[in-house]
Amino acid sequence: MSATQPAATINLAVIPGDGIGPEVIAEALKVLEKVVAEEGVTLEQTEYKLGAQHWLETGETLPDEVLADLRTRDAILFGAVGAAPGDTRIPSGIIEREMLLKLRFSLDHFVNLRPSRLYGTVGSPLANPGDIDFIVVREGTEGPYVGNGGTLRGGTPHEVATEVSLNTAHGVERVVRDAFRRASERPRKHVTLVHKHNVLVFAGHLWKRTVEAVAKEFPEVTHDYLHIDAATIFMVTDPSRFDVIVTDNLFGDIITDLAAAITGGIGLAASGNINMDRTAPSMFEPVHGSAPDIAGQQKADPTAAILSAALLLDHLGYTGAARRIEAAVVADIESRNGDSRSTAAVGDAIAAAL
Amino acid sequence: MSATQPAATINLAVIPGDGIGPEVIAEALKVLEKVVAEEGVTLEQTEYKLGAQHWLETGETLPDEVLADLRTRDAILFGAVGAAPGDTRIPSGIIEREMLLKLRFSLDHFVNLRPSRLYGTVGSPLANPGDIDFIVVREGTEGPYVGNGGTLRGGTPHEVATEVSLNTAHGVERVVRDAFRRASERPRKHVTLVHKHNVLVFAGHLWKRTVEAVAKEFPEVTHDYLHIDAATIFMVTDPSRFDVIVTDNLFGDIITDLAAAITGGIGLAASGNINMDRTAPSMFEPVHGSAPDIAGQQKADPTAAILSAALLLDHLGYTGAARRIEAAVVADIESRNGDSRSTAAVGDAIAAAL
Ligand SMILES: CC(C)[C@H](C(=O)O)[C@@H](O)C(=O)O
Ligand SMILES: CC(C)[C@H](C(=O)O)[C@@H](O)C(=O)O
Repeated sequence: MSATQPAATINLAVIPGDGIGPEVIAEALKVLEKVVAEEGVTLEQTEYKLGAQHWLETGETLPDEVLADLRTRDAILFGAVGAAPGDTRIPSGIIEREMLLKLRFSLDHFVNLRPSRLYGTVGSPLANPGDIDFIVVREGTEGPYVGNGGTLRGGTPHEVATEVSLNTAHGVERVVRDAFRRASERPRKHVTLVHKHNVLVFAGHLWKRTVEAVAKEFPEVTHDYLHIDAATIFMVTDPSRFDVIVTDNLFGDIITDLAAAITGGIGLAASGNINMDRTAPSMFEPVHGSAPDIAGQQKADPTAAILSAALLLDHLGYTGAARRIEAAVVADIESRNGDSRSTAAVGDAIAAAL
Repeated sequence: MSATQPAATINLAVIPGDGIGPEVIAEALKVLEKVVAEEGVTLEQTEYKLGAQHWLETGETLPDEVLADLRTRDAILFGAVGAAPGDTRIPSGIIEREMLLKLRFSLDHFVNLRPSRLYGTVGSPLANPGDIDFIVVREGTEGPYVGNGGTLRGGTPHEVATEVSLNTAHGVERVVRDAFRRASERPRKHVTLVHKHNVLVFAGHLWKRTVEAVAKEFPEVTHDYLHIDAATIFMVTDPSRFDVIVTDNLFGDIITDLAAAITGGIGLAASGNINMDRTAPSMFEPVHGSAPDIAGQQKADPTAAILSAALLLDHLGYTGAARRIEAAVVADIESRNGDSRSTAAVGDAIAAAL
């Protein structure tokens, strides 16, 4: 699959998941189906039942056969997974790790792309947000997320628990290069590395050295550095300073939720888990979770899921179709007047605005 | 030293440090000297030259004899350390790790206490901040800060860098108990554990289990849990929900800078690095850094350093004197009208308001 000559058929895997996942995915598909039909592209869909509910019914998280089958698709559209908080039937974190993170790691989704933009009429919790329009390129396959750690003398007063952050030159370099490439295509052409190299010396210096080296390949791109703690301050005092942020898996997790919050909430925040080498399908998902408390009530905002579908089209080379979805979303957002619409009504409006 | 019968003499170590450190410490001492004199307490001071400038002159970070000498003091008042960014003469992070973190670890400062309060007249970057008044009890001697990690094949395309987070039942339990004790003395009596246990399973479960166990000792204290990413969202959308946050060293670093930002900036944020077992002196420091860009210009706000001196008095049992400083700070803050005063003028005003 090349980014310049997209195929005439998209072989799409759909994982609606739990909670509000199915509702928001239904709207994303409504918009996606309409736009690809108009572009003369065939959309083949295969739905996969996965998530907390599926685990309760079958005890399965992500069987090898399912993973193998997913590998045959062009891309994955993912809703949300996760049980209701306090549902003690499901071991804590099992769905996240053995399903969501297993997908990201197995399919080598090394670019976790999370754009943040404050649309004109959307309320920010910040008093003076300014122009916010940046992307976070979060590393997706390493760092403290590798699941490498253990417990010694668990449950005793002598318990020791470890978590190992693993960082490789291979893993850091490819994502840093991706961030610089994306920056080179943006008007401001600026990369900010976010880490904590004064404390996490070994990983931090690998990241810093890699940024210095890759920066030489992109003389037109400027770059700077912020510790993660300072980055959260700027996120609320001067977010317009950011253009492209590149950071590790854990810092990226934290900073992208904060970024979503200051740009009007996770109802609007889209993401792509992207394998830029195209050796496996990439996966597109709203940043929000399954929100079991409002599930099935048509209260969820499907915009993040719809924008994730635009990122999906972008990745597959259908840039025109991606831009049409984004424009329709912007038009819809700008026409919002505070009325609460149903999930389907938002999807209908965006589809109509295409 | 007991918290109820304070000694008649305070044997104080003073580490002004770099950048704006000496300026803000001068004001903290101005206020401290005045209040203790009025309370009939003798203040003996010993100044220690430490920090980036001292390293440049001597190559010393924190010699063993200096550490041994510091151990003989009742408490340490600390300004800030750190070279100007881009000063390539100083190996990155060496002062932070071999001096500041070495102090915290050697003197077993397991409670890194950081109160966050939005004073009436202080501007917050949030549009609707609400009532903000919480404390963060950040673990100070473990987690990803232990300096345990390494580099394999450094500088090659096969480099692997690791960082190990170490967490012990001993270390987690004592700080969690401290957080519950502090919560039990506050009106709202609520503890929020912040971690990322769905990903950092081993450390996360130690923290969760410990909170569940310690909570049983404090039936009057309620508690809940937030992942660090969600906590940053609430920090900007609903910060008044927080009363006492307990969290690990790295998450605490991040969340306290964000907390300082939403309550008007790190010019006001005080902190204590506290050894609650009193086996070594505790250390009190503003959360801000050395700000080399404005050093020596009387531009820095000494309020954070002055409030840190109040935390120091509190720890040594001079609660009346501590409350007097806090009241003077509040009075000064409420009389601010946006005029920029010199560092010394702020110190003078707070001393006068005592
Ligand atoms: C659900 C969780 C494992 C996940 C993460 O930490 O990456 C989520 O917070 C996200 O940001 O996509
Ligand atoms: C200077 C640095 C090592 C330190 C930390 O990370 O703890 C600082 O950010 C702080 O919060 O006191």
